[in-house]
Order: sequence, then structure tokens, then C-alpha cells
Amino acid sequence: MSRVVALSGGVGGAKLALGLDRVLPAGDLTVVANTGDDFDHLGLRICPDIDTLMYVLAGLDDRERGWGRAGESWRFMEALRPLGGPEWFQLGDADLATHLQRTYRLSCGETLSSITQDFFKRLDIAARVLPMTDDPVRTQILSGGRWMDFQDYFVRQRCEPLAQEVRFQGAAAARPHPAVLEALHGPGLSAVVICPSNPFLSIAPILALPGIREALRASGAPVIAVSPIIGGQAVKGPTAKLMKEFGLESSAAGVAAHYGNLVDIFVADEQDANASFDAGTNAVFRQTWMRTLDDRESLARQVLALSDAWRTTGP
Amino acid sequence: MSRVVALSGGVGGAKLALGLDRVLPAGDLTVVANTGDDFDHLGLRICPDIDTLMYVLAGLDDRERGWGRAGESWRFMEALRPLGGPEWFQLGDADLATHLQRTYRLSCGETLSSITQDFFKRLDIAARVLPMTDDPVRTQILSGGRWMDFQDYFVRQRCEPLAQEVRFQGAAAARPHPAVLEALHGPGLSAVVICPSNPFLSIAPILALPGIREALRASGAPVIAVSPIIGGQAVKGPTAKLMKEFGLESSAAGVAAHYGNLVDIFVADEQDANASFDAGTNAVFRQTWMRTLDDRESLARQVLALSDAWRTTGP
Repeated sequence: MSRVVALSGGVGGAKLALGLDRVLPAGDLTVVANTGDDFDHLGLRICPDIDTLMYVLAGLDDRERGWGRAGESWRFMEALRPLGGPEWFQLGDADLATHLQRTYRLSCGETLSSITQDFFKRLDIAARVLPMTDDPVRTQILSGGRWMDFQDYFVRQRCEPLAQEVRFQGAAAARPHPAVLEALHGPGLSAVVICPSNPFLSIAPILALPGIREALRASGAPVIAVSPIIGGQAVKGPTAKLMKEFGLESSAAGVAAHYGNLVDIFVADEQDANASFDAGTNAVFRQTWMRTLDDRESLARQVLALSDAWRTTGP
Repeated sequence: MSRVVALSGGVGGAKLALGLDRVLPAGDLTVVANTGDDFDHLGLRICPDIDTLMYVLAGLDDRERGWGRAGESWRFMEALRPLGGPEWFQLGDADLATHLQRTYRLSCGETLSSITQDFFKRLDIAARVLPMTDDPVRTQILSGGRWMDFQDYFVRQRCEPLAQEVRFQGAAAARPHPAVLEALHGPGLSAVVICPSNPFLSIAPILALPGIREALRASGAPVIAVSPIIGGQAVKGPTAKLMKEFGLESSAAGVAAHYGNLVDIFVADEQDANASFDAGTNAVFRQTWMRTLDDRESLARQVLALSDAWRTTGP
């Protein structure tokens, strides 16, 4: 029975997920991964957030580049170019093993969640990582009156287009993975952690699934969000840019306001201790910038301590 | 209009195809590639003979290893192993670009021949290489009462099972590529070359297609076969082993007898000059072992000279 459920996107979220995985006993952590960024490329099903979580939790990630696998090589891309293949999305040689094996197993009728759990088990990852759903959900961005697929916006156009709106195609009809709802309803649940991922692109698709918000509210455990914005800047990615484009204050307080009463404890960085949060926000301030492995573990411990305190003293 | 049509399998045939490509003017050579070895692996369509021809003709082949690409790397296979992927068929990182891009284009509805011609053009290969057909043909081997797929026999079981029979599933219903028949019927045709490929596994599938044998007989050009057996040994692969298992003499003379009156000129190696050929065999003896690029060009020139002489003096 999971004690902690974490909602996560890719890089930023995976850092805290790794910290939680390292400080919690095996079996205590369930990570719900965003699948709204998933897409098909060259006939391969690519699941960027699941893969980032897999590489980070298995210690296979490239920490300097910030994405993909450490020691990755690019012979495939070099050979694809002269054949006229698409170059805008970089597929590393080792990374391809994940995509090909997954795509093949999907084509044999296996579910994404079953394949994901098998991969994580084979890589000796203790945490249980579940795709938010086995049904197709596709994040799209409205810009200049045109809906763009997420990877087109994020990778090909490097988040440059002005975003007017975000939608999650298929979310309303998608069923959250049953084990996600089960974990959220579990009597042993002590915390729901919203990782420092992009609230609009990584966490919103998970929350858009039918029943997820209700399950968070009904869980009895505190919902603790960690701010992806520190001192007005996103640690990585387009969070701050998007907030400006949506007319929101691109700050930790803005993120807290966005989550509203869904969140019981909002963990912002110490840098933002003097910022003005909405009256309804229960903001606490910690060192949230995760540069080292120690930072990841330390933040994980503090988040768990906050949930323990909340359950003892109440909201 | 093609002046020379060559029928070829993989490695052995590709050596002579390269020689022909180098000595003939651009546009004069059409190579008909066996597709009976094609198979699906990990969701990828793999065409071993087309790929060998492509790498050899583009100068990208690994001459020392004898298959695949020069300077190939194996990061994909190393990453596939821990994920539980199949290990029996080696997929190089650069080689994967061919398989993925082809499989993707096939899934978009393009034909194998169209994709093949595009790849060869992009790699600046002068010869026109056509898959024998765009329809599925699958070579299978009967052993111990069980039909095995070709790659299972050839790669996974390293040709070890005793072969009782070979069949080409789908061949009877397959249509030879129209450009193959057109080239064989062309008025400018001066030679049909059967490359030194395995007669039973690489050339037989081409000859099994409806209309191909008839087109060879009706072409008016001499059909010249180069022996894949030198001094009783196959240069590479299971040709000699198969001949023994089929109760045939595993020699150049045995190959000539197998081709029978389909072939006008049978080019055997000088080593076999004293062997006894069937009375009906028009055998000539040349240095056929192709170790160097010069050997390939030299044999190609001699084959073309034989066809010129045949057309002048008649059979």
C-alpha cells in the first residue's frame, strides 16, 4: 500500500521523485506520470515524462545535459540524416531501445502501464511509476489561432510561439489508471506530492482526468505542492513564459494561486519568503533548488516532514 | 534502358553487383534483389539483401566483418538487453536508421521499391536496385518436419538444422516488380547476370516469381551465372551444406546442373577447370574469388565480355 503518491512531469518532477524514492522504504512511493506529452515519431511511441522518470530513478540520466541518457551516442541520427529522416527530434542510440521495445510490446496489445512497470522492475527501480492513464491524452497548445501538438511547440519550435490556451485532447474520455485511484483512496496514504513540474503542461493533464481532483480532495492526506518557480524564474522550461502569456503573475505566488484550494501546503523557495501569497495559501519556505543528490533527498525529507506535521496538527 | 540486369542476394552477390556498378556507365545496371529473407523484428521491417546491396554499393559496408555497416556501434543492443528485448538479431545503431525510416514509410503506405529507390538515390548509388517484388514473399526451411522462418534458421540457429526443403511463402501470388519485367524485356538488354549468391535461398525466390523464368528465356540476352561454389566450398554461407542435404553434388558443377538450361554461360572458378560438368553446361573458368575491389571490377568486366562475345558469336 502506497504511503506517498507523487504527481510528476519530466525533469523537474523527476528530481523530487528521485529524492522521495531514496528516502522512502521500497514500496511506499507511487509516482503518477504525465502522458500528455506522449507522441508518435517515426512509428515509435515516445513517452518523454515516463522515460525521464525511468532514466533518473535508475541513475541513467544525463545530469549535465538535463535530458536523456548519460553517455548517449548519436550514430542513429547521423545515419538517419542522409536517408532523409526527420532531424528535429533527437533520438539517442540507447534511448531508442526504450522506444522500440515499448512500441513493439504496445503493438502486441500490452498496455503502457504494464510495459512501464516491467521496464522499471527490470531496472531495479523501487518506486512504482504509473502512467496517469493507458488511454490516449494529447496536450496541445493554441497559438495564432492554430492548435499545435505539444512536441511541435516544445521541441521543434523551442516554446517560442505565444501560447493562448492549452488543451488535453482525450482527457475527458480517458480513465485514470485504476491503481492511481486505488493509491489515492488507500487508507495508508500519508501524502500527495505535486512535484515541481510545469503546472500547465505536466500537472494539469493529470488533474484533467475524470475523478483525479475528487480523489485528491477525498484522500484525507495532505496535498503538498512544490513550486517550480523560484525567484520569479522557472528552474527549467517554459513555466514562467506561459504564465505571462496566460496573464498570470509568473511567480511562486502565481503558481500557488493557480492550484488554489486543491493544495494544502505550498512549498516555495526561501528566496520567495517575502513574496505576497493569497490569503488562502498555506505557504512554507524551504531550500527547493535541487542541484545535488543531497538536495533532492533533503527536499524529499522536508516534504514528508510537512505532511507528518499536517496530519498531527491538522491544516 | 538497362543494359544489364543482375539477380542478387546479399553479401556474395553484392560483391559482383558492386563490380558491375563500377564498370558500367550510370543507368546501365538494374539489380533485382531477393526479398525472401525479409522479416519483421521488434516491429521493424528488415530487408537483409537490399540493405547489404545498399551498404556495399554506397561503400558503407564492413568488409572485415562481412555484414552490416563499417564503424557500426552497438549502444542500442546494450540498452535493449536490460529491458528484456530480443538479443538474437544484432541491430547496429546506424543500421537502425535504415530499418526505422523504411518501416515508417511503409506504414505510411509507400512501397518497398519506392523507398528503396529513394534511399539508393540519396546515397548517390548509380545502379537501380529493385526489390524482386513489393508483395510479401517469405523463405522458409523445412527441418525435422517443421517449417522455420529464414532468419530463425540463418541467424538464430546459424544454419545448423538439417534442411529438407525450402519454400517461398507467397511467391506464387506475388507480382514481380513491373520494372523488373520491363528491364528483362527491354530491347537494349545485353546480359542477365545471376550473381554468386546462394542458388537455393537467394536466387530461387526471384526465379519462383510468376513470369521471371519465362522473361529470362525470352529476353534474347545471354543469362550468365557466376558460381558461388569454389573448389567445393561456398565462399560464405550455407550453400555447400544445403546442397549436400538436398542430395546434390556440392560443387560448381552441381550448381550448374541446378540452373540447367536457364543459364547460357556458367562462370566457374579456375580451380574448378578440371571438374566434370554436365554435357549441356557451357562452363567457362575465370578467377572468381573477389577479395579486393579490383577483383570485383575485373570479374564484372569479364562477365560483360562473355556476354558481348555470346551476342556476337551466338551460343
